[in-house]
Formats: sequence, C-alpha cells, structure tokens
Amino acid sequence: MKLTEIYWHLRPDIIKIEKEIEQNIDAQHQVLQQASSHLLKAGGKRIRPVFVLLAAQFGDYNIEKVKHVAVPLELIHMASLVHDDVIDNAELRRGKKTIKSKWDNRIAMYTGDYMFAKAIEIATLSNRPDLHKYLSEAMVEMCIGEVEQIRDQYNWQQNLRIYFRRIKRKTALLISVSCQLGAIVADASPLHQLQLKKYGYYVGMAFQITDDILDFVGTEKELGKPAGSDLAQGNVTLPVLLAMEKNSELNERIITYLKTESRIPFDMKATIEDIKATGAIQEAKKVADKYINKALLALEPLPELRAKAALQQIADYISERKF
Amino acid sequence: MKLTEIYWHLRPDIIKIEKEIEQNIDAQHQVLQQASSHLLKAGGKRIRPVFVLLAAQFGDYNIEKVKHVAVPLELIHMASLVHDDVIDNAELRRGKKTIKSKWDNRIAMYTGDYMFAKAIEIATLSNRPDLHKYLSEAMVEMCIGEVEQIRDQYNWQQNLRIYFRRIKRKTALLISVSCQLGAIVADASPLHQLQLKKYGYYVGMAFQITDDILDFVGTEKELGKPAGSDLAQGNVTLPVLLAMEKNSELNERIITYLKTESRIPFDMKATIEDIKATGAIQEAKKVADKYINKALLALEPLPELRAKAALQQIADYISERKF
Repeated sequence: MKLTEIYWHLRPDIIKIEKEIEQNIDAQHQVLQQASSHLLKAGGKRIRPVFVLLAAQFGDYNIEKVKHVAVPLELIHMASLVHDDVIDNAELRRGKKTIKSKWDNRIAMYTGDYMFAKAIEIATLSNRPDLHKYLSEAMVEMCIGEVEQIRDQYNWQQNLRIYFRRIKRKTALLISVSCQLGAIVADASPLHQLQLKKYGYYVGMAFQITDDILDFVGTEKELGKPAGSDLAQGNVTLPVLLAMEKNSELNERIITYLKTESRIPFDMKATIEDIKATGAIQEAKKVADKYINKALLALEPLPELRAKAALQQIADYISERKF
Repeated sequence: MKLTEIYWHLRPDIIKIEKEIEQNIDAQHQVLQQASSHLLKAGGKRIRPVFVLLAAQFGDYNIEKVKHVAVPLELIHMASLVHDDVIDNAELRRGKKTIKSKWDNRIAMYTGDYMFAKAIEIATLSNRPDLHKYLSEAMVEMCIGEVEQIRDQYNWQQNLRIYFRRIKRKTALLISVSCQLGAIVADASPLHQLQLKKYGYYVGMAFQITDDILDFVGTEKELGKPAGSDLAQGNVTLPVLLAMEKNSELNERIITYLKTESRIPFDMKATIEDIKATGAIQEAKKVADKYINKALLALEPLPELRAKAALQQIADYISERKF
C-alpha cells in the first residue's frame, strides 16, 4: 500500500493545503517565491498536514479551521529543511538540487526565517492563543535539537540517552504537536487530544529511527545520497551506537574516525557491512517497532473512525517503509 | 542628555527586562547560552523594550504584563542581529567580536532561530492572540526586508522609493510594533494605540536614516567599523542616492563600483568626501528631521505624562545623535 492511498479520502483537503502553502509563499515576494517554489516542487510527503487533518477528524472537522494549523506546521517543517540545507552543506535533498546550491546561503536563511514568521502569522488566523503556545514550544525544542546535533557531530562520547533526546527534539515533537493541534483545533475531547499527541510522539520517534536505519540499508538511488551519509558527516545514529557496543574493533575504528573528524582515509562501505554484521540494524528496527507498538496502543481509546484506521496504517507503513 | 537619562524613571523595569532576557536564554542550553550571552554582554540600547514600557504608560501599566511583550521584541531584534552577522559576514558589531567570528555560522543561525521561537513562546504568556498577529506580521515584513536588502546589494538601479520601503521593513516596523504592543498590552485607548504606532514608525524611519548618515560622518572609533562600510558592502543608502542625483561624475563612479561589485580599486575616502561635498548629508538629515517632526506630531493627542516627554526626548535624541 502506498502512503497516499492510506489517506486517499482526504486528498481534496491535502490539495487545498498544498495550494495555501504555495499561495502564502508566492504572493509576497519574487525572490522568496523563486527560492521556495523550488522546495515546493521538490515535493515531500506533507506528512505533518496529513496528521493534522486525521487528528482533526476526532472532533468537529472543518477544513477552513484546520488549515490554519496544517499550513503552519508544514511551513515550519519546510523552514527547518531550508535551514538544514544552509547548515549541512547538503548538496542534495530528495535527489533534487537544494535551495542552497541554486541560491546562496543568505537567501536560504532568510527564506527559512520568512517561513517561520509566516507560519506564526497564519496560525493567528485561528484566534486561539493555546495553539501559539504549543507551536512555539515545539519550535524552541526543534532549535535546541538542531544546536545539539551540531554540538554532537563527531562527538564520540555519545550514548543512547543523548540520541533519543536529540531525535525527540529534532523530529518527534513536531509530529506530536501536529496530531495534538489537529485535535485541539477541532475541539476533540481532552483525552483524545492527549492520546493523539502521544501517538504523534511515538510515531515520530519511530519515523526518525527508521530514517537513521535507512541511511545504512538504502541504496544511493533510493536515498538520493550515498549510504552512510549520516556517519560520513559525523552524525552518530542508533545503528552506529548499537554496533559500537557489540564489536570492539569497530567501536575503536569509528571513534578514531570521529575523533579525527573524517580527515583520515575511512572505508565507509566496509564499515557499513561491519555495522550490519553486528545485528545492530535488526536491533534498531526492534526499537522502532517498540515505538510503533506504543503508537498503536495510544490510539486504542479513540473511536473507530476511518481516520483511526488511517493512523494505524501510517504507523504500520513507517515500520515497514523501505525508503 | 544621555539616552538612558531620558527614561531614568523606568530603570528598575528595564533591568528586570534585561534579566528576563538573560534567564530565558541561559536556562535552556549551554551552547545557546554561550553563543548569546556574548550578544547580551555586547550590550545595546534595549530601545525596543524602552518603547514598549513608555507606550504602556498610556494605559494600565503593569510590568508583569508588559514584560511579555518587551522581552519578545528585544529577542526578535537580537535574533535579527545574530542572523545579520551570519549574512553580512560582519566581523565587528559595536566594536566587539560577533557570534559568528567566535562560533561558527551554523550555531549562529540556530541561535537566531531559537530566539525567534522563544520570543513567540514568551508572547503566549500574555494570552492575547492579537499580539501574535502584530508580532508575526512585523517579523514577516522584517524577513522580506532582509531579502530585499540582499537583492538590492550592488544594485545600481535603485531609487528613493525602494530605499524607504526597505528601511521601513528592516527597521521602522519593529519599532512601530514595539510602541503599538506596549499600548495594547496596557489596554490603552484605540486612539492612543494608533498614535503610538505612528510615532514608532516615524521615529524608526528617522532612526535608520540617521544610522545611514552616521555611516558616512562617524569616525571608525565611534562606529566600530570604517566609515563608508555600507557602501563598501554594496548597500546603497539615502546619502548615496541623494549624492548620485547631484553629481554626475560621482554618480558614474558609484555605478561603476556597484556594477563591478567592488572588484576594482575604489577610493572610499575620496568618495565619502565627494558625497559630503554634494550636500547630500544635510539633505538626508532634513528627511530624517521631517520624520522626527511627524513623530512629534503623532504624540500630540496623548496626555501630558512623563512618558510623553520621554518619547519626545527620544525623538530629539535620534535627530541629534552623533553615533
């Protein structure tokens, strides 16, 4: 099953959100428009708006209200991608040229800033101060997560706790808040708001862990970048941490690599094979599945709507996704 | 009269705001703290919080409420300085090393993002959705202004209209919204809100024009950077535009400089003298004074409070400031 088939019934509303995002960027400024239409065309799963829409189904669903949350959440995500490109010097994202490589870093930074500000501006249309609280808290945590990621790059003294906290801030909280705000804007019951928020958090953790696994098991064609790119850039993820625990020679080799900040020759292909040989991929997969199970459990108190089935299917999809 | 003497009676509250800013940055993360305490120590006039506090005096003044606007406005300003440093490759700001030169650009960018997000988070404490509307609108315009400044760098086909629109977005709107939100958070009358908003806009325009004049007439010691730095970086400001109208040889010389993006030898000292010789500085000063007069006029309907005298004095101060 393809991801888009899961929420096929929301397709008209997703298209509406997509258009609103385009309009909000297009209308204001030619330079911004050119810089970000590029990102719009690069596509993306628009998974955060999908979560908003699905969560809103557990209350009074009104797309005219829901869009004031769905659009900001996608804009915040897009802004973070734009700033990631400035930061990571990533030459490719999803196989397409990044804004950075076509425009310069300065425009990219302010395009990201603009998207952040625009996200808040659109959220004001819902006229609910609580939304701003949750949105801005998630943004604050995201920024701290980004700073932590920079700080932890080439840090060879990491542990699982640091990793989990980082991916929580970097990824899980924004997905969690997408589910939560969808429920809030539709006036779903407090219990349902809470369960959807939890679901989003667990699914978000699983999503990032799966992403980190795919960086090792995906092909260059699937990933749009060479396998092992995270480690190559000094980002230590779950499979690496688990593999380092299991193989002391590998542990030493990776520490040396990190300590010297990849200035010495390093056989990434062999290292990927050695990581796989420890069973760390399967173990990381188990951790992701643990989160998926928690996500599914969080959905249990919710009524049997089509949206519930869709959220379950998305969780299964994340658990099984190949790229 | 020194600027701080004008609002001496607000000194305890300004100190409170200063502390709140520090706490909000310090508490959360060591890296952020180190990056931004640097900026805190570099000081600054905290002119935006001062405007918030003064404007709030025209309503129900309560520092515990006012701070939820004053702190965000200074944080937004600080965030824009941090991002300016990333962008402008400025090696010096107020004569001190910038965050960029001590930390790298990546940390600086996320420190700015963090401050933006934190600003919104603190503003939520006031529990008033209208504040978010005005704040985010000002932020959106600021970002567009920054993008315009980049687009217009080394653009030799500028005019006054483009210049005024850019400084409005870059500087005047945030000062305007500082006055407006101070009045709003203290529940000042709609008329007073409007007049204070206007005052802030006019004072902000005059402030930026004066800044652009000082870039030519200040000494390196006063400015913390060489005179003519704006033009050296391809930023065409009011004195330059006016001088280009008056002296066709100078006009051609500057156009050549801009067209070649400063890759050819250029005698900045001689050009500054030639700009001064056209009388463009005096003329730019007249434009600034026109805005100051409009600012003072905007204050007229307001009651004769000490805060009104302070706002008048700040306007006079801006009109006369030497650096």
